[in-house]
Amino acid sequence: MATEVFDKQKTIDLRKKYIGPSCKVFFNHDPIKIIRARGQYMYSEKDEQYLDCINNVAHVGHSHPEVVSAGTKQMELLNTNSRFLHDNLVHYAQRLQATLPEKLSVCYFVNSGSEANDLALRLAWQHTGHKDIITLDNAYHGHVSSLIDISPYKFHQLGQTEQSQHVHAPSPDIYRGKFREDHPDPATAYADEVRDIIEKAHAKGHKIAAFIAESLQSCGGQVIPPVGYFQKVAHHVRNVGGVFIADEVQVGFGRVGSHFWAFQLQGDDFVPDIVTMGKPIGNGHPMSCVVTTREVAESFMSSGMEYFNTFGGNPVSCAIGMAVLDVIEKEDLQGNALRVGKYLMELLEKLKEKHPLIGDTRGCGLFVGVDLVKDRLKRTPATAEAQDVIYRLKDQKILLSADGPHRNVLKFKPPMCFSREDADLAVGKIDHILTDFSTIHIH
Amino acid sequence: MATEVFDKQKTIDLRKKYIGPSCKVFFNHDPIKIIRARGQYMYSEKDEQYLDCINNVAHVGHSHPEVVSAGTKQMELLNTNSRFLHDNLVHYAQRLQATLPEKLSVCYFVNSGSEANDLALRLAWQHTGHKDIITLDNAYHGHVSSLIDISPYKFHQLGQTEQSQHVHAPSPDIYRGKFREDHPDPATAYADEVRDIIEKAHAKGHKIAAFIAESLQSCGGQVIPPVGYFQKVAHHVRNVGGVFIADEVQVGFGRVGSHFWAFQLQGDDFVPDIVTMGKPIGNGHPMSCVVTTREVAESFMSSGMEYFNTFGGNPVSCAIGMAVLDVIEKEDLQGNALRVGKYLMELLEKLKEKHPLIGDTRGCGLFVGVDLVKDRLKRTPATAEAQDVIYRLKDQKILLSADGPHRNVLKFKPPMCFSREDADLAVGKIDHILTDFSTIHIH
Repeated sequence: MATEVFDKQKTIDLRKKYIGPSCKVFFNHDPIKIIRARGQYMYSEKDEQYLDCINNVAHVGHSHPEVVSAGTKQMELLNTNSRFLHDNLVHYAQRLQATLPEKLSVCYFVNSGSEANDLALRLAWQHTGHKDIITLDNAYHGHVSSLIDISPYKFHQLGQTEQSQHVHAPSPDIYRGKFREDHPDPATAYADEVRDIIEKAHAKGHKIAAFIAESLQSCGGQVIPPVGYFQKVAHHVRNVGGVFIADEVQVGFGRVGSHFWAFQLQGDDFVPDIVTMGKPIGNGHPMSCVVTTREVAESFMSSGMEYFNTFGGNPVSCAIGMAVLDVIEKEDLQGNALRVGKYLMELLEKLKEKHPLIGDTRGCGLFVGVDLVKDRLKRTPATAEAQDVIYRLKDQKILLSADGPHRNVLKFKPPMCFSREDADLAVGKIDHILTDFSTIHIH
Repeated sequence: MATEVFDKQKTIDLRKKYIGPSCKVFFNHDPIKIIRARGQYMYSEKDEQYLDCINNVAHVGHSHPEVVSAGTKQMELLNTNSRFLHDNLVHYAQRLQATLPEKLSVCYFVNSGSEANDLALRLAWQHTGHKDIITLDNAYHGHVSSLIDISPYKFHQLGQTEQSQHVHAPSPDIYRGKFREDHPDPATAYADEVRDIIEKAHAKGHKIAAFIAESLQSCGGQVIPPVGYFQKVAHHVRNVGGVFIADEVQVGFGRVGSHFWAFQLQGDDFVPDIVTMGKPIGNGHPMSCVVTTREVAESFMSSGMEYFNTFGGNPVSCAIGMAVLDVIEKEDLQGNALRVGKYLMELLEKLKEKHPLIGDTRGCGLFVGVDLVKDRLKRTPATAEAQDVIYRLKDQKILLSADGPHRNVLKFKPPMCFSREDADLAVGKIDHILTDFSTIHIH
């Protein structure tokens, strides 16, 4: 077992001294110290076991031995840049491509989702010769400066409504958005909003380089766009020479259960021009990827500017990436996400019948949101209650988070080995907490 | 020994098919396939041994067993984000801080030099409230979109002279620049250029957020700024409310031999406001860091925007970072850089006496440049000859590169375990090649 170097208070003190104060911990009032983890469980310095319902990076389970072993073996042999030929780079690219539509065939390996989305913008700008990016309300695409501009999630926190020249389309949220589940065709209605935005931009002399969206909005409140929305948006955007960027950083690699990529939920007739990947790709190892079409890749090359990424696509990262693909397949984690996700949704549906605080439950595989409301008709976000649930769950050794623009959506995105028993445990605890709430409310 | 998955031609074919064509290999006509490496040696699929004189990422030597072991042990235990408390994060920050002036005390861990420099710009913008960045001619600071703007090295390749609103100061190159070694005070003269640029920017209503420079320009041609230059520039920049960013991505961690950080070559009276680190920090593991003052960090926090980096500062990266610091210390690699660097410079000085093609040799520790010229008086860059040297050395199993705006500067930046024997071997081969050149020339 791991031992501590410092006691917890000392760790907190050193963190205050040496780490940027903008870097926040979970549960700020009483943060958790974790010293080891395995599968879907994390362990504190006191060896308390926490059930992890939130870590979508530890995709195939924390510290998976096959992933560790693949990384170790390759570290022992070689870790260098992609200016030398290496089989891991091309082998991994080949295997990753096999999970995607044929048209998406050219890979760029980078180190983080932020680097991936920034490169996606560079590809779009170069390919189209246009400058404007359409992003969704409440979107989050990363922390480098170009992405803060297209991440309303970030600057809305600051009470700023507009901070960049880029335009936001309404989030295709059929529970809380402009067009709801009672609308006859929300996919078309939301896509028409994008069309109108394009027309307005054109009227001002702007030109659209890209539309970028997470295939399922994650920080934005676990939003599942209506089927057909992406096809219609892509049609409008391509009509004016722009490209469609699908951000799979949080939701790719089988999480949605029925498909390997979340954009595939929209149907086989939808293929993005650029796909970005991240968090789960290396089970925690810093790596990411951008995949695009030959056409876009050729445009990017035609600028004459070399693209070199020091660490991107190194043999260790690629070995780890391949091990992650292996484990997903061997352990049927995509199937598990489908089955356990369905079971979790059933449990949550039952909970919704019992507790009026639950306004909506929505999910695909192990990507699940529980929208808490003070009033089911008005759908008033129950922000304080959501925070309370999270803190109480933490006290009971369940790690869950609340997100969305109102911070009222309980967000399940656990490691993919999450089991029915784990679902029972987590939902059971939530049931108790909500029952407690209603008791307090009644008396 | 490692085995191949594909034969070399198949690797090349798959690379063409699946990897972005903007990602270039070394020795494009006949690229090298490397399957293992140890210390300063790399081995091809045919087990040919190459002496690595260029890999400043494999800082403590390729596949160093202590670094591998530290990474493995931590991967087996835990790899998660910095929203949980962990000793490695704070311990590593503490150790890194101990190498720096006291004022530089707040760390942000990120995944690449590009992420580090982008964050440095965000810190500078937020702290100063200003927007303009002064960068040096031929500078290279990374590949994300914000950094392409301040990396003339990149867009000069395209024959574009100006691509951004940011301004470039002349590179403080006393061999090839505006003010040379015969100038009575090149430090002041080059710093005055920055002052003039600031005045011009102010006249246009612009305000300076930062001056950014590598502590030693690397891609820009192995340029060593005259002592006192940074102090004077910092004075001018701070006078107008800007900050000084020292980019140590390529040159930090003891490479210069006499000091741990290359900016320290300027004297104890110089402390940057922000330092960025990268390449060598994890011996190839994707990690990086930005260190700044408490003052700048507080300004950044005061925006209210959280800074979260998914992989940055994870326990595995920090364990690897600590192992790198341990090995530098235990194996006295900084001392080795000083001693072997001095020896290498002596050999190169002798070579210069013998071969008129060598116009200048310059270096600090294991950061060494050999400027090839067709004419010593005119200092005409011998670009083709430099490329020829590189290719011939490759045939003789020595990996060296040529860089700088004219691609005529032979660039030594080997792993820090580089030995006197390695220096003898490399310089001996260069001697033969240059002798060969002059024979061809005479007859």
